Amino acid sequence: MEKIEQTVANIQPLDGEAMEKARRRQECLTKPRGSLGQLESLSIQIAGIRGNPRPQITHKIIFTLAGDHGIAQEGVSAYPSEVTPQMVYNFLRGGAGINVLARLVGARVVVADLGVAVDLRHHPDLKEKKVAPGTRNIAKGPAMSRAEAIRSIETGIELVEEELPRGMDILGTGDMGIGNTTSSSAITAVLTGAEVSRVTGRGTGLDDEGWTRKTKVIQWALEINRPDPKDPIDVLSKVGGLEIGGIVGVILAGARYRIPVVIDGFISGAAALIAAGLSPQVKSFLIAAHQSVEQGHRILLEHLGLKPLVNLDLRLGEGTGAALGIFLAEASVRILDEMATFSEASVSEKI
Amino acid sequence: MEKIEQTVANIQPLDGEAMEKARRRQECLTKPRGSLGQLESLSIQIAGIRGNPRPQITHKIIFTLAGDHGIAQEGVSAYPSEVTPQMVYNFLRGGAGINVLARLVGARVVVADLGVAVDLRHHPDLKEKKVAPGTRNIAKGPAMSRAEAIRSIETGIELVEEELPRGMDILGTGDMGIGNTTSSSAITAVLTGAEVSRVTGRGTGLDDEGWTRKTKVIQWALEINRPDPKDPIDVLSKVGGLEIGGIVGVILAGARYRIPVVIDGFISGAAALIAAGLSPQVKSFLIAAHQSVEQGHRILLEHLGLKPLVNLDLRLGEGTGAALGIFLAEASVRILDEMATFSEASVSEKI
Repeated sequence: MEKIEQTVANIQPLDGEAMEKARRRQECLTKPRGSLGQLESLSIQIAGIRGNPRPQITHKIIFTLAGDHGIAQEGVSAYPSEVTPQMVYNFLRGGAGINVLARLVGARVVVADLGVAVDLRHHPDLKEKKVAPGTRNIAKGPAMSRAEAIRSIETGIELVEEELPRGMDILGTGDMGIGNTTSSSAITAVLTGAEVSRVTGRGTGLDDEGWTRKTKVIQWALEINRPDPKDPIDVLSKVGGLEIGGIVGVILAGARYRIPVVIDGFISGAAALIAAGLSPQVKSFLIAAHQSVEQGHRILLEHLGLKPLVNLDLRLGEGTGAALGIFLAEASVRILDEMATFSEASVSEKI
Repeated sequence: MEKIEQTVANIQPLDGEAMEKARRRQECLTKPRGSLGQLESLSIQIAGIRGNPRPQITHKIIFTLAGDHGIAQEGVSAYPSEVTPQMVYNFLRGGAGINVLARLVGARVVVADLGVAVDLRHHPDLKEKKVAPGTRNIAKGPAMSRAEAIRSIETGIELVEEELPRGMDILGTGDMGIGNTTSSSAITAVLTGAEVSRVTGRGTGLDDEGWTRKTKVIQWALEINRPDPKDPIDVLSKVGGLEIGGIVGVILAGARYRIPVVIDGFISGAAALIAAGLSPQVKSFLIAAHQSVEQGHRILLEHLGLKPLVNLDLRLGEGTGAALGIFLAEASVRILDEMATFSEASVSEKI
């Protein structure tokens, strides 16, 4: 817990001076004021995070964290749990959606096992950080112990710290874990106070019957585990996931080291709720990449006060949405840095 | 007119077989079916346009066409007309928003003068295609002659044909012209049948008084010019613009040569309305990059049956939104081409 406390204690506010300089520069660039909309505000936010009025984005990293969920036994997913390790191997071979989009945007993917149920084969690019071999079934008791929840967050912080020396101008979060939309719905219900049915979606593709079962399972899990909404680590341990805890740590460390954190979809959003519960300051370091199809995602983003950059009906996870968000973040700072000003270009200003 | 007729006559439907193959491949890729949302449907559309189930996007071109508008005399813009040539020079020096975003997505910007009011200095990268030195004031009579309208469209077709030998896997449209949102609102009102006040926005940044004046000017222009909604070229000549006519030609040629056409914002959208009026088939070749702040844009996109990819409150034009759309189009075909299938990756399919 000490590592989490230290990290949280070192999260500073955004740099208002850098933001003000960036804002003034945006107003001098050869375009009508505000005409690049969210790209302008995004560049100003990133200036504030980096403490640099003309930040550069060169080193981009997406953390894709994997973990299994005991709740998958209850038939809450359209896919079997064996898909979690299979997809980890797919990530390591470069064949998954996140690999394709990360290559396109020039981001490195860091794949970590936070809690896959089976032992994974060694691979030079796999971060072996297993906290436990999956969570326990939350329909029968808590997902993990409080110590494991803390360990999963600390592991996420470590992952960022291990990558920092290689350079990190922006980071994206991603997840893999069959059953993890169930866990994310439970977290979202507890931390936003919304009804379970309003924050439960179809995950990888449930039919109506499957959705009803999933909703009931979550309601039951909340009833028997009674997570305390005032204690985010209690929520994580009772109904969360090991990869979700890892993402919480990645987010906290991103804020601690002043790195813009592009959160992916619903699962990363649930992690962001927990991170913001541990430190409200975290919110100003977050960039919401997209609006997922998962219906709980909208509620969660509103709760965090975040406006998603795109809405392309994505629901894959892995960090795929974050990759698109990283592209837009880079576009925003390139605009800020590379565009000519009115005086440089001898362009007349507004009448 | 012969060139336009020939171009329109050679627009073929999308390739259904390539689309079906692309659709089947999307279903075999290692992700829940449909989980990449609009990126999946976009890749299938591009497969149909290119007649290739695994299309590649390597050569990307954005056509940024400039023209002046006589209506600017009526105080409908927050900027003076001299900004049109100033911005053309800015494009040629690489300092404008479109240059920054085109560099980021690896697109080449083709800058053409279709109707800037003043004589521009020669520049190796400027396409000198002036049809007339700006349009006439539509509050006093037609913007241009029918012959000029036809010539502007033909010029747009020529622009595409001149670039084709250098390779073109996708194209984006862009505009520069002080006063051209006024013209676009007039076109949109005529061709969608919507009230002028519903399709008139604040352009580069009008205040309430300016907006009221702009709306009245457009209503007056429609009253005195009486453009025929059944004759798109009449609409272009009565209330259009030379760069808008050029974009109409670029769109028609894109469809003719089976190149995905990423339309930018409101001005390009107005051109797309005219192009679709000349050939409804054109619509299936269009990709709407973004939802602009301009309120007429939503109405126009609905009329064309297009769903914009992003909504970032952009209103710059130049092709900046199209650059983002080109990135997403490339992302979509990379996913289709590069992702592993379930069998390649030994990943279990849905239960």
